[in-house]
Amino acid sequence: MIPLSGSVRAAIVAVGDELLLGHTVDTNAAWLGLELGTRGVLVVRRYTVSDESEEIAWAVRDAMRVAELVVVSGGLGPTPDDVTRDAVADLLGRPLQTDPDVLESIRVRFLEAGMQELPEPNKRVAQVPEGALKLPNPVGTAPGLVLETPESLVVLLPGVPRELRSIVDGSFDELLARRFSEHLPPTCSRTVHTSGIPESLLAQQVRGQLPEGAGVVTLAFLPDVRGVDLRFTVTSMEPAEAERRFDELERRLEPVLEPWRFYAKRGDLAEAVVEALRARSADLSVAESCTGGLVAKRLTDVPGASDVFRGGIVAYSNEAKIRHLGVDAVTLEEHGAVSAPVAEAMAAGAARVFETGAGIGVTGVAGPGGGSAEKPVGTVWYAAWFQDRVAVRGERFPGDREAVRERSAQAALLLLLRLLEGRATYQGPPRG
Amino acid sequence: MIPLSGSVRAAIVAVGDELLLGHTVDTNAAWLGLELGTRGVLVVRRYTVSDESEEIAWAVRDAMRVAELVVVSGGLGPTPDDVTRDAVADLLGRPLQTDPDVLESIRVRFLEAGMQELPEPNKRVAQVPEGALKLPNPVGTAPGLVLETPESLVVLLPGVPRELRSIVDGSFDELLARRFSEHLPPTCSRTVHTSGIPESLLAQQVRGQLPEGAGVVTLAFLPDVRGVDLRFTVTSMEPAEAERRFDELERRLEPVLEPWRFYAKRGDLAEAVVEALRARSADLSVAESCTGGLVAKRLTDVPGASDVFRGGIVAYSNEAKIRHLGVDAVTLEEHGAVSAPVAEAMAAGAARVFETGAGIGVTGVAGPGGGSAEKPVGTVWYAAWFQDRVAVRGERFPGDREAVRERSAQAALLLLLRLLEGRATYQGPPRG
Repeated sequence: MIPLSGSVRAAIVAVGDELLLGHTVDTNAAWLGLELGTRGVLVVRRYTVSDESEEIAWAVRDAMRVAELVVVSGGLGPTPDDVTRDAVADLLGRPLQTDPDVLESIRVRFLEAGMQELPEPNKRVAQVPEGALKLPNPVGTAPGLVLETPESLVVLLPGVPRELRSIVDGSFDELLARRFSEHLPPTCSRTVHTSGIPESLLAQQVRGQLPEGAGVVTLAFLPDVRGVDLRFTVTSMEPAEAERRFDELERRLEPVLEPWRFYAKRGDLAEAVVEALRARSADLSVAESCTGGLVAKRLTDVPGASDVFRGGIVAYSNEAKIRHLGVDAVTLEEHGAVSAPVAEAMAAGAARVFETGAGIGVTGVAGPGGGSAEKPVGTVWYAAWFQDRVAVRGERFPGDREAVRERSAQAALLLLLRLLEGRATYQGPPRG
Repeated sequence: MIPLSGSVRAAIVAVGDELLLGHTVDTNAAWLGLELGTRGVLVVRRYTVSDESEEIAWAVRDAMRVAELVVVSGGLGPTPDDVTRDAVADLLGRPLQTDPDVLESIRVRFLEAGMQELPEPNKRVAQVPEGALKLPNPVGTAPGLVLETPESLVVLLPGVPRELRSIVDGSFDELLARRFSEHLPPTCSRTVHTSGIPESLLAQQVRGQLPEGAGVVTLAFLPDVRGVDLRFTVTSMEPAEAERRFDELERRLEPVLEPWRFYAKRGDLAEAVVEALRARSADLSVAESCTGGLVAKRLTDVPGASDVFRGGIVAYSNEAKIRHLGVDAVTLEEHGAVSAPVAEAMAAGAARVFETGAGIGVTGVAGPGGGSAEKPVGTVWYAAWFQDRVAVRGERFPGDREAVRERSAQAALLLLLRLLEGRATYQGPPRG
């Protein structure tokens, strides 16, 4: 395939029975997608095939029809089922030859590892197709191999993630620049993180705000159980101009995004909460019932959380809520454990016990058991406490136990973030 | 493709720009590979394509040439880029029709979630190709869709892993039996769960015990950060005979497996701990530092954990360890927070505070910061307390923050399980 001006298309061929049988999760695929993307190369297809020569040849041939860059990963090792090198050499009519430099570097590696003799099978790794360019592998024996054809650049990489990554990190910038310099468009993207609004509703509201679409900017919705990311992408545009377009789009979408948006470098709401606490020199403790440690776990996932996170109490039983968090027995009796006043008392109790400026309380029915007609599975009350203010909310979350717990933790973190930011709509305890 | 006797071939088509661009790691692929494998179906190819109709149609058409079962995942949602349903309906000439039952079930879901009106885009999810069989989706709105063609059975599943898995778990046995009964070899398998031993070491020891292999039984090692599952599989064998073979293999492997094996229906060590506590009418509380709520979260992931789990305290700071868990200030001073005596005092402290028969304590350096020459990142001490006995262990775990935390939680749970079982090798506090 001949490159079109302004875009380079890539196809990935992942080789290995273990990928098809499910013994290995293919983490190379996503990593390559992101890395090529930041270099202006768009992955348009991925083929995953078994360790058979015919399958590898089929995939590479097909990939060359649709992409000007073909990256083949896996099957370059010394065992008999590693046949990628042979299959591609055969397909492209480039006979294999033992490369003395590669052979020598393997020999040195084996010597250094304390082995006197290079095992016969490992010598296969030194075979290189005629005319292939070698890409240095700083952490393994098999070099990357590059075969130029009129249609496509075909690159063979080892399947071991550490090796594949270090070859790409070391060699791809130069490799791509040399072959595709005039075709590589600058690609820019911006991601807006949201939480608390379903993907379908967000998409509907975004379209309501942008009836004629987003112009040359591509919009993508990336949902998971914790929230929806909205990604803007443009290609072939100067970065400054792209940023200007993104700013303009964000301004137009402001009324839609404002209630749900949060800012976090790694896209994690817990990270945003830790940052917001740090900015206010505030510290935090949590009291959890149905989430059972998940809110504390989310916060302590963030490196450096110990600057602002003091601790947490998981109080599953009523007795634990009374004894360890100071929840009033009469309140528990009157409203039940899953109620606004108890969530509020838990948040305040955590802050009191750990002597922190902020507190979170979560109580609910995660299921599968424990639901009732009045409080079905998924009913959750959560509260955030900061200085003299408190915010309480109740919701019924869909999904199974895991989903209810994930959504509850996320909602409680978002509520605290809003309270820290002083957003009025989220303040005041609507007694349930 | 017409099935060959004794083997059914499957191809997977994964749909989604986010998979190609690398925003999402495709975890469905490996899961489907394993699940189909245990049902006697061999995945022979996987196609990953963008959200474009032409790409989806190309992949499904090609997949039908090589496989009698084609599983398409993703693109069944309500947003405009969800076009799998339309592309496949078009390819196979089966016009889409709104299914009143599906529409009603979506309406009920939205009502239950507190929304009065079903948004217009969500109605698309109720469109079903003519003559398609619907597979119930217990955790989402989009049902699985099955299209029978003379060549292949084409199954469309939502891409959200939870939804895909629950549809496969609920419907695939019957679905496959109906279409492929004469071609599906009876497949039996047994899984042995282990924790605490690396895959390479376990594999080496297993091979040491079975020098001539496992006969007709296939052995697979399925590792993740929490442990390694060992799976025995045979095809074309009577179930009683297969069980006899598995028993015999387990007997031969007993010396290798015994220290690391645990029993749990869903393969989760926390589940095994909950069961062991229940069997002894014992209850548990936990005290966590570096795991920050993860041990409590793991335990409360288990439905019904509230029967035995009373609560937990996340004590990040020394002060919290002293105040809330009664750890001795002098001990902290002398040994440091990451030490055997502190782990032991935390486990005992949790049991005292929550008045439970058993306790767990974990303290360590999860990283990336906080390491020292004496106690580098990954150093973790953990303790289990049950009645008058205590067990303490220290390890240096490899990996990043998340891996260290996961390994620490798993190791602490395993230690408590061994203590509950009265396994002598794990008893007694080896002061660190």
